[in-house]
Amino acid sequence: MNNFVFWSPTKFVFGRDTESRTGALAREFGGRKVLLVYGGGSVVRSGLLDRVKASLSASGIEWEEMGGIQPNPTDDRVYEGIELVRSRNIDMLIAVGGGSVIDTAKGIACGVPYEGDFWDFYCGKKIVEKALPVGVVLTIPAAGSEGSGNSVITKRDGLIKLSLRTESALRPKFAVMNPELTFTLPPYQTACGIVDMMVHIMERYFTNTPDVEITDRVAEGVLIAIMEEAPKVMCDPENYEARANIMWSGTLAHNGVCGTGRAEDWSSHFIEHEISAIYNVAHGAGLAVVVPAWMQYVAGVNPVKVAQFARRVMGVVSQGDDKSVAAEGIKRLKDFFMSIGMPVTFKELGIDNPDIERLVAKLHEHKGERIGGYVKLSADDTIKIYEMMQ
Amino acid sequence: MNNFVFWSPTKFVFGRDTESRTGALAREFGGRKVLLVYGGGSVVRSGLLDRVKASLSASGIEWEEMGGIQPNPTDDRVYEGIELVRSRNIDMLIAVGGGSVIDTAKGIACGVPYEGDFWDFYCGKKIVEKALPVGVVLTIPAAGSEGSGNSVITKRDGLIKLSLRTESALRPKFAVMNPELTFTLPPYQTACGIVDMMVHIMERYFTNTPDVEITDRVAEGVLIAIMEEAPKVMCDPENYEARANIMWSGTLAHNGVCGTGRAEDWSSHFIEHEISAIYNVAHGAGLAVVVPAWMQYVAGVNPVKVAQFARRVMGVVSQGDDKSVAAEGIKRLKDFFMSIGMPVTFKELGIDNPDIERLVAKLHEHKGERIGGYVKLSADDTIKIYEMMQ
Repeated sequence: MNNFVFWSPTKFVFGRDTESRTGALAREFGGRKVLLVYGGGSVVRSGLLDRVKASLSASGIEWEEMGGIQPNPTDDRVYEGIELVRSRNIDMLIAVGGGSVIDTAKGIACGVPYEGDFWDFYCGKKIVEKALPVGVVLTIPAAGSEGSGNSVITKRDGLIKLSLRTESALRPKFAVMNPELTFTLPPYQTACGIVDMMVHIMERYFTNTPDVEITDRVAEGVLIAIMEEAPKVMCDPENYEARANIMWSGTLAHNGVCGTGRAEDWSSHFIEHEISAIYNVAHGAGLAVVVPAWMQYVAGVNPVKVAQFARRVMGVVSQGDDKSVAAEGIKRLKDFFMSIGMPVTFKELGIDNPDIERLVAKLHEHKGERIGGYVKLSADDTIKIYEMMQ
Repeated sequence: MNNFVFWSPTKFVFGRDTESRTGALAREFGGRKVLLVYGGGSVVRSGLLDRVKASLSASGIEWEEMGGIQPNPTDDRVYEGIELVRSRNIDMLIAVGGGSVIDTAKGIACGVPYEGDFWDFYCGKKIVEKALPVGVVLTIPAAGSEGSGNSVITKRDGLIKLSLRTESALRPKFAVMNPELTFTLPPYQTACGIVDMMVHIMERYFTNTPDVEITDRVAEGVLIAIMEEAPKVMCDPENYEARANIMWSGTLAHNGVCGTGRAEDWSSHFIEHEISAIYNVAHGAGLAVVVPAWMQYVAGVNPVKVAQFARRVMGVVSQGDDKSVAAEGIKRLKDFFMSIGMPVTFKELGIDNPDIERLVAKLHEHKGERIGGYVKLSADDTIKIYEMMQ
């Protein structure tokens, strides 16, 4: 087990009607005037935004608004938010939505107190030392950004999608999580979220760090729970209990508890980020295509942990060797993704003629000659992985 | 799933040599002059206390000391600590040790800013609103107090052992966790810690709250990891990797992540607290005696979750009904406790003639007519449970 720091200070307030506590929570963490960041019209139409505003009013908190954040959020909205916050003396960001909205709020939060370009943090030139406090009202369980110190933003100029990781500076102060708010998510988006949270765990699970039984077992437990609850939310979108299990799983998948003391991988995310940056597909759907191909490729080199995953998570009982057990586990994972309506090929993702050369070139331009931890992948490897998705 | 708040803001700094970061961490959380609280001579003899002091000095932090805290810590040392802190302008407590030392530091931390008697918090008269910050250098993985907001103190007058739970006021600001510091723990104490952490999970696991698959799976994962690593630390006390897995498991067992969204039980702890308050036995050893008896009794009334525990954690594969599966699971748990040298009867605990009437009377005097959540137990029930331990 490697040395580690685990610091997840977010206050999670989970359950029915919890959005009515947003104002009190904002006040508890020092907010006086907040910027409400949100996405499309659904938070407006559903009345959620009004309920949040009523809660802020009741606590004597003022607000400004910035709506219309798109999936795969872009730098232009971050710059816009930074200007707005600076000009209106705003002291806290509250994201009402999912990962794209939260990540935009985080970009603004670290950009405001910094004199230079906030992009410096994302491209690794600078480390975030100060940030405005961020609060969250979560509506999409997927990205795990409500409990992580991370943010992913795409630079429009050049379509560079980069992720920023901080130990604690960008962890939200609080996250309000009402599973009822996820009842109206379209099935495709629900399924994308399920894939995304599963892959957040798998990026941590696939490691060569030895003797990490405790995190292996926790990670396996969360994965099993997600796969048990997923069919329930797919057939019965208003099943509160199943939605609650999925929502909390999404947080545990990414707040770090599944990754303590071990080297992590993240190559599937990097491989996918290039796809969604160029073709603007949903990140979770992209991952459903990437991960089985990635697993199949790495199992050819290093099958140990893939076989453990197959046995403990996918329930493969077999006397076969690690490679055959791994292959059966990957087949079952693919079947599971298909069972919840996810694509597993480029074509199913709506990309008939992927420009694989461009994907590979951009991937290694952004992430260096070799990516990943479980198996280190050069362009010779990643081209084969992209080809396996066809 | 019930509504819940999960807030575990402690910064865990885990791994080799991490005690050298104590001073920097104390400073990060605002300490200028700290009270070092510790137990017997081992932290002195091993040189740990000196290393902690050197780290404080290097960060320009002054200290006072209060050593000699005993297992099952008592109120008199808390009063003494409160006086000391007040008279010397101390602004932070640092506990160097295990649960008894940490719980004493927590008692002092909430007592100092309070004008009344700190015992008011433990007997439920008052709620903790303010407390001095507490830091921890952990040497015994067991109580989980390094990551919890809880504290257990025994009042010498009347031998009342009461536990205090706070949402966040008494959560340590930081916890330094170096598995090497646990190499020299005597085998009996190591085993007691293993039982204690397992039971912290089981008190949360045994619930009637439906649809809590995610916490069930996490709890089962941590239990399985502990049982896999336990034999390794028992035969090879200097196995760093196994010690590390056990140490981190002890934190996850009690920081709340295994208990979100569900009613908890805690009757085994209450039943045991009376035993250790009167007979001054080690808490973990007491639990090894209590828990199988408690499980056997409740499985007679409500076998569902005991059978799930038997199947998923103890690996019972059987076509039998829940009661027979539960019985086999309990047998395996008892075998496991015995395999690590733990007692499973009063006699093995060194109590030849337990005063069961007194235990039952004190239990219900302190905890009310009925205790527990999974099965509510009156004195008619608890007397049978104590009798089953003979």
